[in-house]
Amino acid sequence: MSEQILNGNRRAIARLISQIENDRPEAQAVLAELYPHTGRGHLVGVTGAPGTGKSSLVNQLAKFYRRQEPPKSVAIIAVDPTSPFSGGAILGDRIRMVELAGDPGVFIRSMASRGNVGGLARAVDDAVKVLDAAGFELIFIETVGAGQNEVEIAKSAQTVIVVEAPGLGDDVQAIKAGILEIADIFVVNKADQAGAERAVATLKMMLELGRPASRPVLHHGQVMATPAPASGGAKEQPPAGWDIPVLKTIALKGEGIVPLAAAIDQHLAHLRQSGELANRTQARLIDELEAILQAELMKRLWDQLPPDLLASVTIQLVERNLTPHAAGQILLAEFFKDGDGLNQDQAGSKQ
Amino acid sequence: MSEQILNGNRRAIARLISQIENDRPEAQAVLAELYPHTGRGHLVGVTGAPGTGKSSLVNQLAKFYRRQEPPKSVAIIAVDPTSPFSGGAILGDRIRMVELAGDPGVFIRSMASRGNVGGLARAVDDAVKVLDAAGFELIFIETVGAGQNEVEIAKSAQTVIVVEAPGLGDDVQAIKAGILEIADIFVVNKADQAGAERAVATLKMMLELGRPASRPVLHHGQVMATPAPASGGAKEQPPAGWDIPVLKTIALKGEGIVPLAAAIDQHLAHLRQSGELANRTQARLIDELEAILQAELMKRLWDQLPPDLLASVTIQLVERNLTPHAAGQILLAEFFKDGDGLNQDQAGSKQ
Repeated sequence: MSEQILNGNRRAIARLISQIENDRPEAQAVLAELYPHTGRGHLVGVTGAPGTGKSSLVNQLAKFYRRQEPPKSVAIIAVDPTSPFSGGAILGDRIRMVELAGDPGVFIRSMASRGNVGGLARAVDDAVKVLDAAGFELIFIETVGAGQNEVEIAKSAQTVIVVEAPGLGDDVQAIKAGILEIADIFVVNKADQAGAERAVATLKMMLELGRPASRPVLHHGQVMATPAPASGGAKEQPPAGWDIPVLKTIALKGEGIVPLAAAIDQHLAHLRQSGELANRTQARLIDELEAILQAELMKRLWDQLPPDLLASVTIQLVERNLTPHAAGQILLAEFFKDGDGLNQDQAGSKQ
Repeated sequence: MSEQILNGNRRAIARLISQIENDRPEAQAVLAELYPHTGRGHLVGVTGAPGTGKSSLVNQLAKFYRRQEPPKSVAIIAVDPTSPFSGGAILGDRIRMVELAGDPGVFIRSMASRGNVGGLARAVDDAVKVLDAAGFELIFIETVGAGQNEVEIAKSAQTVIVVEAPGLGDDVQAIKAGILEIADIFVVNKADQAGAERAVATLKMMLELGRPASRPVLHHGQVMATPAPASGGAKEQPPAGWDIPVLKTIALKGEGIVPLAAAIDQHLAHLRQSGELANRTQARLIDELEAILQAELMKRLWDQLPPDLLASVTIQLVERNLTPHAAGQILLAEFFKDGDGLNQDQAGSKQ
């Protein structure tokens, strides 16, 4: 299967991504074969609040790259960490299919979580590897929302585009959306609507006021307090001198796409020249590793705790005889009691 | 300290919440003392996209409950899982202070993550317990955004209010914000603006079309695939017959607040009558337990892995000789090698 994917076989790509989504173990073997062939595509994250027109923008960018000479191949992963209540993802897909259908240089895939956000982020990471190994030159990771999880997913890209639109950005709350720190390029889409200039001015003012000098590398929540030792050095690079542009587009009319694509390409060149590309790639891989470790540890814990103990601790928790903290201590003590990995306790009592 | 908090001493409450935010171990001892006194307050989550006017709405609700005879005590936790780039949280606080200052029956607290979302969610859970034990009758948990993490935090409340506003809801993407499944009450705020009727109609249509019969209990991402055994039964209750209202408000003018407060109170009565209150409380506590276990397992892993091994695995990962998945397997094998909690391996080799 890895041979077919390296040759760009679309059905093999789609099949492997489905296996990844379904968490099938055989997918990891293929991924291990593909892994040495990854690291070539340009990963572009696109995020922003609902209603900003991200999908239209990505479609226009895809069309632009396809019209270049020679055309660049484009993959789009549209990520919806929320459950597909409205069927909106499917509708969005269909609109895309009509616009970009039949072009063998474009690959589009929606990925939704149906409740399991952690699993989705890991699946997206792996799907990106598949598309990267398959030779796609631009890989867009587009998220539907602007919450922390969408930001987590989008920020794992090398270039992050944050999309705003007039009328969403004129509020104290809108500038707290947590996506400003991770932007490499700002886009004010729907620039023909009232308030566009104000949105641009607000963003520029905020950039001048106090943007952190270099993009902070956020970790998956729980691990933040204990940074992975091996990566500490690489994450504290000095600011690398990229001036974050604020661009205006009207995606529905195709306006502003050429300067945006130019900014995307310039940012990649900047990342390469400054050495920042390696830092971001490393941070991304370490984030992936952390997420995998976290999921696996929890799985082992649930698999191995005696059901009786779980039941009794849960009852005491619900009856407010044990705080969640105290309940956690009891379960962890049981999990680690038969020897444990705790160096201090290795000489201690064993059952 | 727990005595002072049970007596409603504001300085003691504030001090304990600060200790919780700073993850100080002494806080857990006080929380254990307070825990039997929790479970009385009505926890109301308020979430929605930026710009919908959630804060104003919560302020109006607080004023309403304070005017009741007898007045009800109100605590507000304003949660910002995003880093406080703009200083917006502080500004918002000041606006609130002016409006509600000096009322001993109102307690307001902002909580921000500065990058550690997992830690924030746990701190909010614990802060809610403090306020609950201190006797606040209504505890509002208000989130600034509408991403998955904000939803996670808000949904742990007993009653969840999802706030929309005209102009944000007229887009296919806006209805995918992932907050619809968790709403007990919909509010279209800014109802004097153009598009309000359309937003109401859209929400009502969506409710008719296909809302799941009962609120799904989402788990923290990674654990979704392996449900906690002890809680499985309680989570699959039949629909309990609550008709989700869609209400219009103009928070800035104080309009629509009385019907909204009535809906909040009716929802609590409904939860009590249907037995759903116990289910939600149980699900919330189990979510808390899972989050604590996850954080503690990761901490132990990082503390105990040999730095040399971590470094060499990281290098192989970055050089694309090891996939994140394979790297994770190596680290876990090391972590569990000295006896492990793996039942099958207990008779296996020990160092």
